[in-house]
Amino acid sequence: MKSWSLAASAVAALLACGQAAAQFKNTDDAIEYRQGALAVMGNHFGRIGAMVSGKVPFDAKAAQASADLVATLARLPWSAFVEGSDKGDTNARPEVWSQPDKFKAASQKLEDATAKLAAAAKTGNPDALKAAFSATGETCKSCHDDFRKKH
Amino acid sequence: MKSWSLAASAVAALLACGQAAAQFKNTDDAIEYRQGALAVMGNHFGRIGAMVSGKVPFDAKAAQASADLVATLARLPWSAFVEGSDKGDTNARPEVWSQPDKFKAASQKLEDATAKLAAAAKTGNPDALKAAFSATGETCKSCHDDFRKKH
Repeated sequence: MKSWSLAASAVAALLACGQAAAQFKNTDDAIEYRQGALAVMGNHFGRIGAMVSGKVPFDAKAAQASADLVATLARLPWSAFVEGSDKGDTNARPEVWSQPDKFKAASQKLEDATAKLAAAAKTGNPDALKAAFSATGETCKSCHDDFRKKH
Repeated sequence: MKSWSLAASAVAALLACGQAAAQFKNTDDAIEYRQGALAVMGNHFGRIGAMVSGKVPFDAKAAQASADLVATLARLPWSAFVEGSDKGDTNARPEVWSQPDKFKAASQKLEDATAKLAAAAKTGNPDALKAAFSATGETCKSCHDDFRKKH
């Protein structure tokens, strides 16, 4: 029984591996994917920022659409920090790979904060949105401080 | 009355303009945004392609998640083809701006096809997904043929 279940686990692991590899053609493709997701997420986060700072009028519907996008996109980049993608056109610091638990915790904080951002946007209350925007921005900054190269 | 409503229209147009401009810092930012959305969309479309072609096992849940993402992202790039963003690190052909109605129709075809893709993925039926994948792929190709520079 034990060897059977071990064999089944090995097969499952191999299948999972094959699928993960199939998600990106190569490390450059993975870098393009994560940068793309982060760029679009950053843009829509910025649109919310422009509203909560009063630069553009508050638009509850647009804020909700952007917050939903931010929450959706916040889940994507992490699987693209594949082995070997520390090389190439990337600003990721080696700590992404040398401190995986810390990086995972930081990405989880963003996912949690953006889920709250989307919930706040849904209320249509600008003050709730502003608070959630600030909290989310702190998770961006904290992760960038630790895991992104300074320019 | 007429001059008042004209003035109101002008103010509304200016506000809309200001918001559109506020969405992107500059033309490079707009290019990065649309390329990011298209890259992530293409990646997830490719994941569905790997399933419908049998390269990786069919996974109804993963297919649905990717199809939902594709349909969401398919709505984003078009507003980023702003005036002046024909210059810079872009593969967009001048026809994007010289044939705006044709470009708009092509982008609408993708949005419609990807909505059907998401609906097909929701059924969990691999054959329905395969058909919707092909139909979507044709809208990608047709738009690229007309509006993207050849490499």
